[in-house]
Amino acid sequence: MFIFNPWWIAPISALISILVGGYLRSYVNRQDPGTERMRFVSDAIKEGARAFLNRMFKALGLFVAAMAIVLLIFLPHPIWATDRPLENIIMALAYLFGSACSAFAGYLGMDVATDANVRSANAARRGITEAFNIAFRGGAVMGLSVIGLALLGVSVVYLLTGNPNMVTGFSFGASAMALFAKAGGGIYTKTADIGADLVGKVEMGLPEDDPRNPAVIADNVGDNVGDVAGMGSDLFDSYVVSLLAVMLLGNVLGGRLMELPLVYAGLGVLASILGVAVVRVGEGGDPGRALNRGTYFTCLIYAIFTLIASWLLGYDYRIWLSAVVGLIAGVIIGITSDYFTSINRTPARKTAEASVTGAAINIITGFSYGLLSVFPPLIGIALASLTAYNLCSPLGPGYGVYGVSAAAFGMLSVVGMVVANDSFGPIGDNAKGIAEQSGLGDEVIEILDRLDAAGNTSKAITKGFAIGAAGLTVISLLAAFREVAEVLTGEPVSFELMNPLVLLGALIGIAIPAVFSAQVMLGVSRNAFRMIEEVRRQFREIPGLREGRPDARPDYAACVDIATRGALRELMPASLVAIATTLIVGFIFGVEALGGYLAGSIFSGLLFALLMANAGGLWDNAKKYIEEGAYGGKGSEAHKAAVIGDTVGDPFKDTAGPSLNTLITVISLVANVFLPLFILYSLL
Amino acid sequence: MFIFNPWWIAPISALISILVGGYLRSYVNRQDPGTERMRFVSDAIKEGARAFLNRMFKALGLFVAAMAIVLLIFLPHPIWATDRPLENIIMALAYLFGSACSAFAGYLGMDVATDANVRSANAARRGITEAFNIAFRGGAVMGLSVIGLALLGVSVVYLLTGNPNMVTGFSFGASAMALFAKAGGGIYTKTADIGADLVGKVEMGLPEDDPRNPAVIADNVGDNVGDVAGMGSDLFDSYVVSLLAVMLLGNVLGGRLMELPLVYAGLGVLASILGVAVVRVGEGGDPGRALNRGTYFTCLIYAIFTLIASWLLGYDYRIWLSAVVGLIAGVIIGITSDYFTSINRTPARKTAEASVTGAAINIITGFSYGLLSVFPPLIGIALASLTAYNLCSPLGPGYGVYGVSAAAFGMLSVVGMVVANDSFGPIGDNAKGIAEQSGLGDEVIEILDRLDAAGNTSKAITKGFAIGAAGLTVISLLAAFREVAEVLTGEPVSFELMNPLVLLGALIGIAIPAVFSAQVMLGVSRNAFRMIEEVRRQFREIPGLREGRPDARPDYAACVDIATRGALRELMPASLVAIATTLIVGFIFGVEALGGYLAGSIFSGLLFALLMANAGGLWDNAKKYIEEGAYGGKGSEAHKAAVIGDTVGDPFKDTAGPSLNTLITVISLVANVFLPLFILYSLL
Repeated sequence: MFIFNPWWIAPISALISILVGGYLRSYVNRQDPGTERMRFVSDAIKEGARAFLNRMFKALGLFVAAMAIVLLIFLPHPIWATDRPLENIIMALAYLFGSACSAFAGYLGMDVATDANVRSANAARRGITEAFNIAFRGGAVMGLSVIGLALLGVSVVYLLTGNPNMVTGFSFGASAMALFAKAGGGIYTKTADIGADLVGKVEMGLPEDDPRNPAVIADNVGDNVGDVAGMGSDLFDSYVVSLLAVMLLGNVLGGRLMELPLVYAGLGVLASILGVAVVRVGEGGDPGRALNRGTYFTCLIYAIFTLIASWLLGYDYRIWLSAVVGLIAGVIIGITSDYFTSINRTPARKTAEASVTGAAINIITGFSYGLLSVFPPLIGIALASLTAYNLCSPLGPGYGVYGVSAAAFGMLSVVGMVVANDSFGPIGDNAKGIAEQSGLGDEVIEILDRLDAAGNTSKAITKGFAIGAAGLTVISLLAAFREVAEVLTGEPVSFELMNPLVLLGALIGIAIPAVFSAQVMLGVSRNAFRMIEEVRRQFREIPGLREGRPDARPDYAACVDIATRGALRELMPASLVAIATTLIVGFIFGVEALGGYLAGSIFSGLLFALLMANAGGLWDNAKKYIEEGAYGGKGSEAHKAAVIGDTVGDPFKDTAGPSLNTLITVISLVANVFLPLFILYSLL
Repeated sequence: MFIFNPWWIAPISALISILVGGYLRSYVNRQDPGTERMRFVSDAIKEGARAFLNRMFKALGLFVAAMAIVLLIFLPHPIWATDRPLENIIMALAYLFGSACSAFAGYLGMDVATDANVRSANAARRGITEAFNIAFRGGAVMGLSVIGLALLGVSVVYLLTGNPNMVTGFSFGASAMALFAKAGGGIYTKTADIGADLVGKVEMGLPEDDPRNPAVIADNVGDNVGDVAGMGSDLFDSYVVSLLAVMLLGNVLGGRLMELPLVYAGLGVLASILGVAVVRVGEGGDPGRALNRGTYFTCLIYAIFTLIASWLLGYDYRIWLSAVVGLIAGVIIGITSDYFTSINRTPARKTAEASVTGAAINIITGFSYGLLSVFPPLIGIALASLTAYNLCSPLGPGYGVYGVSAAAFGMLSVVGMVVANDSFGPIGDNAKGIAEQSGLGDEVIEILDRLDAAGNTSKAITKGFAIGAAGLTVISLLAAFREVAEVLTGEPVSFELMNPLVLLGALIGIAIPAVFSAQVMLGVSRNAFRMIEEVRRQFREIPGLREGRPDARPDYAACVDIATRGALRELMPASLVAIATTLIVGFIFGVEALGGYLAGSIFSGLLFALLMANAGGLWDNAKKYIEEGAYGGKGSEAHKAAVIGDTVGDPFKDTAGPSLNTLITVISLVANVFLPLFILYSLL
């Protein structure tokens, strides 16, 4: 029926996706970037963001090079003990290729976002429809490029090698890069945000994004390097690794099942393109709903496409059902997360109310709701994995975990659309910032406020996808780890909790996400400290700055520089500790301990990722609710308390929380990549 | 060589311990309770504390009665399907007996603490030696009574039934009661503390424990019902359950090993009595060191006694070594926790420094160090369990986990001394409060401040014991759970992480400690809200209260009443959700899922217990460091920020954190007690 192998649909869809992305990009660039002042602000943001990414990727070059050499020498087999040294070279190259693609995805997204924000701000002078279109299409460029690059990269590696283990190298490169990019971007953005807020807003009483605030440009740069570029690298990596997990498990079961995820992925890309095409909003429309509608539409199209493909190609319908279970779980997790963070629901309202009694009760209340919020998604992940397992296990041994990986992949196959929605948020946020700094007037700002709010609404659902998918993906990676270990050792490998080595691993593993979060948040707090001192210094030493005298120019560059240098200094240690601990556990205590360690890090990684994302979002919205006029509104004591809560939430939701997905992925990949060495050389 | 069975040393030592406790109690009561004003304050505290405990235990009566009926009907076998209905009756009675003992231990400790505090305050007028003696001996009454009652209770149940499964009923009663008492006491104490601090200290600028503050008596009552009574019930329960775990595992291996823990426990009690006897402090001495010296001395004596006993009775030295490993791990965990909370170390200092930039950075910094602090204890628990396992596993199958349980028991066998140190803290704290409210002058307060500080120092080490022992104990309970399940089903039972049911259980289990913490902290924040309104109302409506006019009398009773009613309302839901979820998982998903669930709850329970205890202690000491004069001292902006951090830490360290030990114990016991029913009736 087909004259070409069906998995070719993957690279073809990927190319289409990249072409559509290019078309949308040229659409964005054709729009008018507005007044001179707007272009000045926009250029400053773009320049700062580019400078940071350039310096960061340069700094990471050393790590990447060193790791490539390690892979070259040792993996998949020590080069002195293998008769296929070519495999080592390919592995190292796949790793380098993955690193480069991941960095490029982030860079590209950041670049188009900084073009789209100013144009969206300018279009808002004429109404919401065009402003929305520009912001959304800017995000879509990112979404389609990420998905296209990722799928193309995997296809190329697979085409050249026919070996999913080489895809592991590609995926490892992408993940390690994503981890650094997220940690670095996350530290940058919150350093700048806290510096701008605490001195500018709280101490000096300036409004958000006021051009007198010396940290304002750094803050806007942060949105781009943290939210956009970091997230681009992150979802690139999640997508690749979820593909990889299905391929590794499918490889054990037989070739067709290894190629199925590529077929599904190709269809997911096409569904995302169609989803992007249907999203639009009228003058009176609600942009948040438009985004969610687009997501649901994409999911539906994807389900139909894959059902037809499964029928045509004779894939078992149970696998298709597992993917659909994943999709549904993603949506449900998103909706429950939305409850805990939405400005219209009890948790945010109660947290706002608690602000009346001061910052401490605000924080205790928000933190508590954040703790509660982990329950529904964890149950969702648990039930999705059990359902997918039971759906597929009648097909034969090994099919159960394959089903779990298919569910994970089901969640992520619409990632093109998810990323489009997600990068819409910071573009709208930045557009608002540019409008404020360029004095475009209240009406324009009100329109951009609606875009910003829509970004926050859709974020809950996209985060549900991201965290849920990460959970299921690392679970399937753990299964793949065990299966590969069994193949390599020729013995059954068990992660029995009552085995003291597994237990030891689990107890160490649960600490890792906590330690990682602590390190990046301490990085933020050290760096914010420096930033706050600098902003205070400028207000003290530049005469007339606070009053807004036209000759009093804040030194934006000094703040950008502090954020950049601080982030570069702080981004490596946390990631290196996590990678090193993984290697130490593997080399000292062996494969079973490492299995427990991975499980432990997954458990506590999910726990903290959900807690931090939701508590952070909740504090933010509790503050916004007060700013809308509740409990005395802006400037009241309750508002001051809520601002403190929001500031605590900043590194929760934008630095540590979103890095944890990537962290557990990287740990899982390190374990998978180094597995042959652990088996050869572990002490116990 | 012995004419009586060696385990008789347990009840004999227990009786000695109770007698020594009685002697020390009469020593305390013989001391002079000071001026009329002091007695007035002290009586108000005592009355409030008694009233709360009476109302709480009455309210819990319903739960206890209902649970006793459930046990009577269903356990160990459904009464309609057993030929030994007597067992059901004994089980229910053992449960009631355990509940009563646990409640009584808390009550007794609270009672003597409220006698000791005022007498210690009075003695401080003559110097530190006597003030220290009274406070320490007051704590020792509690320690020796707790250990004596617990050991006597277990011995009686064991003597009457000869069946360690009946001890499970006793232990379950003690734990469930402890969980309620800790949650209720924890909510009470922090409600009152936050109310007193936020309005009295922050808004009105009154000093700590100022008699004008309407919430001051409620605050002092809270120290007794939360820290003293709650902790008494808690350590009663930990001690019993760690004994139980060794007995259950020993029962499978053969009778001698079931009785070994009773012998060791008896010797531990004697060691604690000797330890209590040697603690004293000279006029210029450091009370904190004296306490720690007492702990080390007790550990040493215990190690020597048990070595001799093992030699005389022919117990294998590997078991003795495992117990010693536990002891050493307890001390090491304590020392590392001390690093993260001590006022003299980097974490507290850096957190104090961060307060200069405001409350948000103080909170982020303290929380991050709290996250870091989980790493060393988790590694300590992991290595202790691996070492103990490997020490004992050469003795035969099943001996490995027996070794782990012996390590847990080794940590807890010196619990008499640990409790004595731990209840010293709140007695000193209260003595200071009484001195402030009775105007005893700066010199006396300075002495009592030193006692208070000493309590904080020794707390770190005792907390290390409590959390480490809880971790190892629940691990051994999990092993016991599996062994009993294998006996009951006649099939091998495995907690293999890649079994989707185990995984599902684990994912649900890790959420439980988070949900529980959230519920009790929301209880605190709701109740503090009411308290703050009431205190503000009194300052507003009672003329001259703030200025301290002699005719302006605050309404202490109203605040005591708010704290009491709120705590009673909030204490049940959290505990019931945890118990219900355990039953639901067991009845729907069966024994393997429940194994995963228990493991998950242990992992996240330990994580949050460590995080909350240490972050809370750290914020407290950062504030104290500023109060000693750093960064502008009392009243500075940095101090205000640090007070907010400390307030956030209050429910962390005194409500949620310390309840988590008990929570995971209760969950494990529910699983063990209901195991026969899960096997009969579970759905999957």
